[in-house]
Amino acid sequence: MERKEFIANTAKSARAASRVMAATSGEKRNQAILAAARIVEARGQEILAANAQDCAGAQDLPQATFQRLKVNETKLQEIARGLEAVAALPDPLGKVKLRRLLDEGLELTQITCPLGVLAVIFESRPDAATQIGSLAIKSGNAVLLKGGREAQGTNAILVDALRAGLLEAGLPVDTVQLLEGREDVDALLALDDLVDLVIPRGSSELVRYIQSHTKIPVMGHAEGICHVFVDIAADATKAVQIVHDSKLQYPAVCNAAETLLIHAGAAPRLLPLIAEDLRQAGTELRGCPRSVALLPGMKAATDADWDTEYGDTILSVKIVDSLDEAIAHIHAHGSGHTESIVTEDIAAADRFLAQVDAAGVYHNASTRFADGYRYGFGSEVGVSTGKLHARGPVGLEGLLSSKYLLRGQGHRVADYAGKNAKPFLHKDLKP
Amino acid sequence: MERKEFIANTAKSARAASRVMAATSGEKRNQAILAAARIVEARGQEILAANAQDCAGAQDLPQATFQRLKVNETKLQEIARGLEAVAALPDPLGKVKLRRLLDEGLELTQITCPLGVLAVIFESRPDAATQIGSLAIKSGNAVLLKGGREAQGTNAILVDALRAGLLEAGLPVDTVQLLEGREDVDALLALDDLVDLVIPRGSSELVRYIQSHTKIPVMGHAEGICHVFVDIAADATKAVQIVHDSKLQYPAVCNAAETLLIHAGAAPRLLPLIAEDLRQAGTELRGCPRSVALLPGMKAATDADWDTEYGDTILSVKIVDSLDEAIAHIHAHGSGHTESIVTEDIAAADRFLAQVDAAGVYHNASTRFADGYRYGFGSEVGVSTGKLHARGPVGLEGLLSSKYLLRGQGHRVADYAGKNAKPFLHKDLKP
Repeated sequence: MERKEFIANTAKSARAASRVMAATSGEKRNQAILAAARIVEARGQEILAANAQDCAGAQDLPQATFQRLKVNETKLQEIARGLEAVAALPDPLGKVKLRRLLDEGLELTQITCPLGVLAVIFESRPDAATQIGSLAIKSGNAVLLKGGREAQGTNAILVDALRAGLLEAGLPVDTVQLLEGREDVDALLALDDLVDLVIPRGSSELVRYIQSHTKIPVMGHAEGICHVFVDIAADATKAVQIVHDSKLQYPAVCNAAETLLIHAGAAPRLLPLIAEDLRQAGTELRGCPRSVALLPGMKAATDADWDTEYGDTILSVKIVDSLDEAIAHIHAHGSGHTESIVTEDIAAADRFLAQVDAAGVYHNASTRFADGYRYGFGSEVGVSTGKLHARGPVGLEGLLSSKYLLRGQGHRVADYAGKNAKPFLHKDLKP
Repeated sequence: MERKEFIANTAKSARAASRVMAATSGEKRNQAILAAARIVEARGQEILAANAQDCAGAQDLPQATFQRLKVNETKLQEIARGLEAVAALPDPLGKVKLRRLLDEGLELTQITCPLGVLAVIFESRPDAATQIGSLAIKSGNAVLLKGGREAQGTNAILVDALRAGLLEAGLPVDTVQLLEGREDVDALLALDDLVDLVIPRGSSELVRYIQSHTKIPVMGHAEGICHVFVDIAADATKAVQIVHDSKLQYPAVCNAAETLLIHAGAAPRLLPLIAEDLRQAGTELRGCPRSVALLPGMKAATDADWDTEYGDTILSVKIVDSLDEAIAHIHAHGSGHTESIVTEDIAAADRFLAQVDAAGVYHNASTRFADGYRYGFGSEVGVSTGKLHARGPVGLEGLLSSKYLLRGQGHRVADYAGKNAKPFLHKDLKP
């Protein structure tokens, strides 16, 4: 059988599994996840051996990637505890979002339900397989997982553990399936009638590639170009600390700041302090002409700098004449991820929060707070810079849809139309 | 200037207007809508004259389409009252969806906000221009409207009235703009960086065309293939009434039923009654072989019938052996719009409601109830059969996104990481 056909059949079996999962109890779904946790522990040595082999074949990966790939005893325990934590989350399905009596005996209920079939493409970290797989089971979705090639051996056993857990709970094993190469992903992206949502977790290149090669909705973010705006009324200590944390607490991630905007009225007072702090921490600054004039020796920024996600200890710096100019720069160059203002002027902060169009808009806080765990979601499926469905850090609810249930007693629309039409009650009931 | 460039500039001016609208008060937005209502009344004669000219040029349209195009004094009053009704709706913006203290002095709020720039493509009815235009203003979005060519003259004045209303309220007039031909639509569909959502309201062909020609998210439904399943335990009167209403109350619309599924154990008892009722009302039935055997003289259905939205007084009929077979048929041939079971067996009804994957799943009620007004939404933007963002009849909330505001006092992520990490509070506050 051709691989394309095989992937189509894989997706069809996922669709069939998702139909069963949608109508299961939360108890059963938790049972599967807890069984998987036990199986991961029981098959620990096997997982470590497979991972050792994966690692042996990945010696030429960058050091950071290699570290994410590695599974040791501690990581194994974390994976099992992670599964238990997902089982402990409240059941996301069947939650009543609206309950309304349309008329006597005619009751409308809107409840949460699974999306259906998810495809998640991730890189390197094998613990992503169990995390995403268990979140899919928890939310009654089927999932097609495509991990990094370098982690294929480890992923295979972890996915196998999830499937064994499903089997133990009497649920369809095809709820979680592992794909293999780039070719599989391409075949998958064509199946917009069988897959409901693609979640790419990885490089901007990966996300952009997927966005431009499928009609399936994609949840994710290709870029994180975040700004910190230091207003004229900024407190010096807060400005230094927030810029430092936003840029340096973890420069490689999407919610790290790439550009510092600073009000012309604050630059002479604050830019030297901020720059000194960042330079001591080894940060390269690239400034607009006015910044360079203020701090000679600073490297000059080019136009491309304002649109660059460095993912590194580099920060572009631009002096602006007003809050409006800062907002205009953010709208022209930002990626709609997370934007922060540092100011003691509440009116300026309120205006920034109201006018900036981004998933997260902050006042006197580091952009690095944009994260599902820090927001208290218990789990994070990803971060979305799209404005539909889910925006910002996305928890389990990003994997849900809803449906309307209507329970009647033979009700006909004809009775509510024309002359002598019965009026609707539209009486909201407690969910 | 080339037309393509003109449309890109139009979309850019819409984006700029949307930035302003997002930060306006509900009062201002209502002021604009109420002013538009007054202007529509004041310019009534002009609108009637333009409409008469539109109608004169559209004599060869089908009668139903021609009727929708026509504006008379009564219609004019309805348009003005419709605008006032939109102004009277509660402000959808800035509603708090989540409020949480992440730590002392660090407060997270998730609020509703506009999507940004909408493009709405509709056919014939000029009152759609004011309805959609006012809903966009109400929700702080900018909108590009493309109405039917045959209504261009009427639409031009109605859009002008909305723009005059915006001007009177001191809001950007480019919040509402009118496009002209099919060429404009094609140019628009390429602007996925400037338009946030396309809503096609019209034929299945229109919706399918748009879905396959743009990367902008599309909210709508290409098809409505709805089923009524008459279970073995169905009440005869309810079965006859619900099938009748689902098929005949308004056969041309998407929530009308196209296929009757009937349990083999109920068919001998109920199919003759249902068929007799439908035939008396002039409905053509197309049956599976077993239906035809039961009711000779019934036309035989072909495979294509199970996938056909007749939009007419035609109903396909299939006898199934079980609830499971009914559900499998619905998943194989349905469009995920609205599905109904007729039964007195609560367990069967509950299973149908839990297992059927559609925007609306009904028990003992006509599929025709699937509608924003009947659901009590006050307004309807459209009906979505997609599972993301909005599903089923969509009210104003379908035009909204959300954003996270975080207010701190210089908070840094570094303090919550590593050893000596501060724990988060994650204390939910009242919205």
